[in-house]
Amino acid sequence: MNTTLESLNWRYATKRMNGQKLDEKQLDGILNAIQLTATSNGLQPFSVIVVEDEQLKRKIAPAAFNQPQVLESSHLLIFAAWTEVSKERIDSYFKQVTEERNLTPNALSAYADRLKTNFSKMSQEEQFQWSSKQAYIALGTAMVAAAEAKIDTTPMEGFERSKIDELFGFHSQSLGASALLALGFRDIEKDPMVDAKKVRRSKEKLFIRI
Amino acid sequence: MNTTLESLNWRYATKRMNGQKLDEKQLDGILNAIQLTATSNGLQPFSVIVVEDEQLKRKIAPAAFNQPQVLESSHLLIFAAWTEVSKERIDSYFKQVTEERNLTPNALSAYADRLKTNFSKMSQEEQFQWSSKQAYIALGTAMVAAAEAKIDTTPMEGFERSKIDELFGFHSQSLGASALLALGFRDIEKDPMVDAKKVRRSKEKLFIRI
Repeated sequence: MNTTLESLNWRYATKRMNGQKLDEKQLDGILNAIQLTATSNGLQPFSVIVVEDEQLKRKIAPAAFNQPQVLESSHLLIFAAWTEVSKERIDSYFKQVTEERNLTPNALSAYADRLKTNFSKMSQEEQFQWSSKQAYIALGTAMVAAAEAKIDTTPMEGFERSKIDELFGFHSQSLGASALLALGFRDIEKDPMVDAKKVRRSKEKLFIRI
Repeated sequence: MNTTLESLNWRYATKRMNGQKLDEKQLDGILNAIQLTATSNGLQPFSVIVVEDEQLKRKIAPAAFNQPQVLESSHLLIFAAWTEVSKERIDSYFKQVTEERNLTPNALSAYADRLKTNFSKMSQEEQFQWSSKQAYIALGTAMVAAAEAKIDTTPMEGFERSKIDELFGFHSQSLGASALLALGFRDIEKDPMVDAKKVRRSKEKLFIRI
């Protein structure tokens, strides 16, 4: 097993995958990590579409500029963030928390009301950006969990959101495509980046210690 | 050592910390993970301020609604995202990649130009939101790396950005405060959430498999 640092050194944004499939246990490990990821207030304001169907991948590919990982992946995850952090969604979450923690029915009402007020002041675009940021925490978590199990990932922002939204009918679910994550295995022969040196800004530039 | 899933189950958004300090090796492990985190195009569009100074923490606290973790943490990280993904910043990164990978001087020029064009079309707010999302990937990575080493974290969005920006002079550096992350150790006596059941949306609600 790898430490997080070993996993982070092993991983890279895989450019070509070999089509090999993740087994159920491997996929489940990554989905479990996404489910457990931290999000602001615990709201998990996103859905994740897990695409394995080849025909559907072929419909997605042109909306993602035909990046080969869409078709060469084992599974393609689509992080779809909430475009509305609605009262209903907040209530649904707090109902679950109240039940699972055996709290009195109104124990969290003031907390929930404060959140509702805050989100009601935000535009739909602001709510979507907020939700997307939470999805990106999950994205970070998923990439570490995958790398620990020697599963490759490619995070992708290069897609036409409107086309993906339309393909999945996200609009009517108050969702919007936020990021894609291809899961699979690197193609050692075809991927020119497989041995590329990892380049990172120096710690002197990235961190300021006070 | 813990697997990522064990780490994710162990961690929670710590409400009270006990003031115990991370040693240099522990801090370094978390900073290394942040440095290695994936970001879009590898740009790492943020700086991370690592605050240990108690006097400075006392100035930050009121801007973060006096959440106790600011003062009780060992170190407080401030993720400051780029408000401008400028030509200079893109050039600086690609210069480093070109050098470290021993590429010919113009090997990545077309790639860099494409990015410059894309970002030049985005408003400053859009650039900041994009940079913030990359910082949130790092936030996710940092929380896993910390939990693996049994170090507690509290991610915080509850702060007045303008006050933090002003305190650190972020504006003149084309940075904006994006998220805070307190590092430290849970106060088992004082933290009411220390044994709270972890609540997550069910897999049936979170994932759609196709």
